[in-house]
Amino acid sequence: MRDVDELTTPALLVESAALEANLATMSAALPGARLRPHIKAHKCTALAARQRAAGHAGFTCATVREVEGVVAAGLGEDVLLANEVLDARRLGALVADGARVTLAVDSVPTVEAAVAGGLREVIIDVNVGLPRCGIAPDRAGELARLARSRGLAVRGVMGYEGHLMLQRDAAERERGVAAAMELLLAAHRDVGGEVVSSGGTGTYAINRAATEIQAGSYALMDTAYAALELPFRPALSLLARVISVSKDYAVADCGLKALGMDHGNPQIADAKVWFCSDEHVTFAPEQRLTAGDFVRVEPAHIDPTLAYHERIHLVAGDEVVDSWPIDLRGW
Amino acid sequence: MRDVDELTTPALLVESAALEANLATMSAALPGARLRPHIKAHKCTALAARQRAAGHAGFTCATVREVEGVVAAGLGEDVLLANEVLDARRLGALVADGARVTLAVDSVPTVEAAVAGGLREVIIDVNVGLPRCGIAPDRAGELARLARSRGLAVRGVMGYEGHLMLQRDAAERERGVAAAMELLLAAHRDVGGEVVSSGGTGTYAINRAATEIQAGSYALMDTAYAALELPFRPALSLLARVISVSKDYAVADCGLKALGMDHGNPQIADAKVWFCSDEHVTFAPEQRLTAGDFVRVEPAHIDPTLAYHERIHLVAGDEVVDSWPIDLRGW
Repeated sequence: MRDVDELTTPALLVESAALEANLATMSAALPGARLRPHIKAHKCTALAARQRAAGHAGFTCATVREVEGVVAAGLGEDVLLANEVLDARRLGALVADGARVTLAVDSVPTVEAAVAGGLREVIIDVNVGLPRCGIAPDRAGELARLARSRGLAVRGVMGYEGHLMLQRDAAERERGVAAAMELLLAAHRDVGGEVVSSGGTGTYAINRAATEIQAGSYALMDTAYAALELPFRPALSLLARVISVSKDYAVADCGLKALGMDHGNPQIADAKVWFCSDEHVTFAPEQRLTAGDFVRVEPAHIDPTLAYHERIHLVAGDEVVDSWPIDLRGW
Repeated sequence: MRDVDELTTPALLVESAALEANLATMSAALPGARLRPHIKAHKCTALAARQRAAGHAGFTCATVREVEGVVAAGLGEDVLLANEVLDARRLGALVADGARVTLAVDSVPTVEAAVAGGLREVIIDVNVGLPRCGIAPDRAGELARLARSRGLAVRGVMGYEGHLMLQRDAAERERGVAAAMELLLAAHRDVGGEVVSSGGTGTYAINRAATEIQAGSYALMDTAYAALELPFRPALSLLARVISVSKDYAVADCGLKALGMDHGNPQIADAKVWFCSDEHVTFAPEQRLTAGDFVRVEPAHIDPTLAYHERIHLVAGDEVVDSWPIDLRGW
């Protein structure tokens, strides 16, 4: 057992009790195969093993590296790569070795890539309103027929209603999800298969069409989701150390290379953050600090923050109870 | 030799000819010890070895990990950590093993940390206008006396005029740098020592006070610096692959976990970027693309982009001529 102040800063901390509560709350709401936890939210096989132990055997991934890591960790019972790839050979090698890997396809070239790579199972990715990947709902059946004609098993459909995930008005969010799921279910009628995979932390409780929900952020939570009255607790913070103090401001040792910045500056309790540099955050604290003090920084966006770090430290109060590698970074 | 289209995407590309030209231009302007290249701009010891071969034996670092990596790569002849730390023990271990490591100090606690860590040499970090680290100029001499009384050699002063680095008006920039350097030289008169370390890519040609310039970005350049009429060429881009195409937009496989986002969205030639997700960029291309096509993405901010990637690939046109690990990430 170490004290947090023995860690090299900046250091990602996960409040163990909050993580446990979040895992338990989600597993109670969506037991077993009703939840297919999304690996991209944490990129950590040790955390995935905890999700497996809570009863969830299937995982969702966003990159080939994530799929490889999940399989290498012995969690490859049923892995969905919920993203398109044009070179599926590394995935095919996993299938040849006995893992079950299902790949999202949304076009002729992605079906051909699945065949060329040695995949056996695919899922039709349907656009349900987010301008990203996914085939138009009325063309999903045709793509499924092509995939089957090329020897692939089509397990069903997926569609991510990401444009609704952070809708703050609960009634609006529910209406939007219902409309998006009408599109997905229409595509499903044309495609067939057992699986309707959809949803995320913002919609897990109101997406009634999905046979499985692809939520990931619930485990560590995020400041954006925290605005939505969800039953999950913020579990992650960034420990930094004050390295310099001036009259009007202090400087701590975490910056642009330790923080996902697309949602803006991080927050520090009882302080106003001025700006971040590569390895610094300059902020005005309400009470005077001293060089050597520790501060806990709240990243504005957790997923791209995690991707900068080599490990997360599980803490109970100020005690480090475990450290887990963030082992699925990169591609 | 591989073709770029055999790389796993997203992949960082460095145009070899542009890098060579940038290294040669800077070494001609600031030969030998006049330049102390800043490692933080690339975090890559293979690139640092090229800078050493161009005649620059001293390096500037922003993190302890960078110092350790530079020393481990055999480049530890004279390494400056131009940043404050409160735990200098890993640096002291390098000094005990024979590396020359000089540490920035700006307060009593940082001097005490240098002593406790086993450092032998420090430099007084002076605030010359950027609200970040650095002691007030009129207190620098007093801190130097403390450091010497504690047994440390004080090599001189450093002061980073970062608030002027991107000033677009050349005359304003020059006036600002002159004023900042007056502060630094006043501190230097009180501190003594041989070294006045300062400057960066935006001011290397106009900072006449510094005995050595801490420039780093010149090697790969950055979109922000590209707006200042500097004689360096943009050398870095991010290769991504189109994975999905819809009527009004296309999607490529690089996103928030592959791009420093604090300066906003990346750019793609002949296209309008709509938004980035964790692993995607959605954009409207002027000409229709096909899934499988490659695009070159220009990150808005290079330093935090590099920190997401495991390697850079040197290319000549579409041919990959070398791949270098970005081996100094993390802390």
